[in-house]
Amino acid sequence: MTGVLADLGEFGLIRAITARFPPHDGLLIGPGDDAALLAAPDGRVVATTDLLLEGRHFRRDYSSGYDVGRKAAAQNLSDVVAMGARPTGLLVGLAAPGDLPVSWALRLADGLRDECAEIGAFVAGGDVSSADRVLLAITALGDLRGATAVRRSGARPGDQVAVAGRLGWAQAGLELLDSGADGPAELLDAHRRPQPPYAAGLALAAAGATAMCDVSDGLLADVGHLASASGVRVELRAAAFEVAEPLRTAAAALDADPMRWVLTGGDDNAFVACLPPDVTLPPGAHLVGEVTEGSGVLVDGAPFAGAQGWDHYRQP
Amino acid sequence: MTGVLADLGEFGLIRAITARFPPHDGLLIGPGDDAALLAAPDGRVVATTDLLLEGRHFRRDYSSGYDVGRKAAAQNLSDVVAMGARPTGLLVGLAAPGDLPVSWALRLADGLRDECAEIGAFVAGGDVSSADRVLLAITALGDLRGATAVRRSGARPGDQVAVAGRLGWAQAGLELLDSGADGPAELLDAHRRPQPPYAAGLALAAAGATAMCDVSDGLLADVGHLASASGVRVELRAAAFEVAEPLRTAAAALDADPMRWVLTGGDDNAFVACLPPDVTLPPGAHLVGEVTEGSGVLVDGAPFAGAQGWDHYRQP
Repeated sequence: MTGVLADLGEFGLIRAITARFPPHDGLLIGPGDDAALLAAPDGRVVATTDLLLEGRHFRRDYSSGYDVGRKAAAQNLSDVVAMGARPTGLLVGLAAPGDLPVSWALRLADGLRDECAEIGAFVAGGDVSSADRVLLAITALGDLRGATAVRRSGARPGDQVAVAGRLGWAQAGLELLDSGADGPAELLDAHRRPQPPYAAGLALAAAGATAMCDVSDGLLADVGHLASASGVRVELRAAAFEVAEPLRTAAAALDADPMRWVLTGGDDNAFVACLPPDVTLPPGAHLVGEVTEGSGVLVDGAPFAGAQGWDHYRQP
Repeated sequence: MTGVLADLGEFGLIRAITARFPPHDGLLIGPGDDAALLAAPDGRVVATTDLLLEGRHFRRDYSSGYDVGRKAAAQNLSDVVAMGARPTGLLVGLAAPGDLPVSWALRLADGLRDECAEIGAFVAGGDVSSADRVLLAITALGDLRGATAVRRSGARPGDQVAVAGRLGWAQAGLELLDSGADGPAELLDAHRRPQPPYAAGLALAAAGATAMCDVSDGLLADVGHLASASGVRVELRAAAFEVAEPLRTAAAALDADPMRWVLTGGDDNAFVACLPPDVTLPPGAHLVGEVTEGSGVLVDGAPFAGAQGWDHYRQP
């Protein structure tokens, strides 16, 4: 479809977007009414919301509409999985300028749809408005299927600390894009489209995780929140983190420390979980440290020197 | 609390905001984890989302933070009620500039909380980010308590058409503010804080409404959507609409047609419902027309001459 949003109008845009979304058994009433109706068989519903703003969370010269859709869905679906729940539906608020190409908005919808399909979820409804820059407000719902929610506050001294998913890739990719580099491609793609290990996250919950969160602000920052909520210390071993080949290549090109990316880079939507010491870790998760008495997060026995994560109002 | 958001930081702001929200039996896990957990006893969950952007949906020189919080909550809670469901929790995405006074954000939180309390709902969680202008993305959830959802598509020829709530007040208030007028105060307040008749909306559903929606784009526009979804015509009688005193006063002051406000003004979050002919209307609802065979919306037998409602990409 050619043209810009202003040609199509609000209701034309809604029709064109919703036509991209297939029906789903869990979606009892879909777009077009005052509200959607979703199955919530557990009798409880997990719910989380995130904002993504152009210029702040993504740039249209770095990421396609499809990329932004994948990323926006991924970061919300991973929050649901971090509670040990199956994602069900997404609600999508989209504001965009009237001169945005219709094709960009439709590819955004495709990205939302395809990321949802990775974990059996669906787009349930939304709202559109106009704004000077693109912004997305995503809400994801999920169902616990009778399980106990995995909170951040359940870690106990003696627990293992495990990680599933990539760490530092998205941040390295962003710094490469900022530098004008055109590779390594895996890292640029990791910034554009995180790949949360949904199955491993659900497996960590099923294995008996005492605490879990997704890594969106950076591992040390998110583990710090978990340690604080649980009233424990988390001790990580730097040698336990694999520094994958593209990170080493990028670090050499940018004269950067790849461990800074691994420990403080956000937006990969990995999962970090604490589990009792006798639990065998599920596939996709690996041991990176342990929970002890105390507070805070140590790396090889000492606080990590460097930025800990991201605060939206206090940037370095 | 004095100062601006940049002084407080992202996590300080979250702490200060969440401290304004009381606990609630329906909120099983509240702010502070990857996601919230809410009771959904029906086994289905109603969900709706809306964006409110500064400069588009509200102006900080017209409305206080408290007003914006009330309005943002009201327009989402009324969407839940329009499905015949009890609102449960709100999720709130807030983006704001670093120089926003902390007091503005905290009063916003108070407004969200107080509007929720009108109908037994609560704030369940959210997200904050920074942006050049204030924007709110609200998601409201609700529970049907075993009832059938009231859709837009169930109206049948012979049904009565009833309205509950104010019509045109918010639009008249906005036009008064745009003109620099300082009254009538009820209309200025109606723009700042709609008063959806939640109880009457739920009573219309309980009375057997075949179709219902909230009036957010304007009565003719919203009834047009309902007529289209139901495959029927809606015939309204102009004389059935009371033109309340403040509307007459404002119309005289602005040399405006008050029926234009009543029939096309949005943002009052009234409810319009269709009900079988033998149903006695509940308190707060009054008869304004009937459903017939055909399509479209007629007023006194003819299409209404004038703007029908609001399209975000096509403004007059």
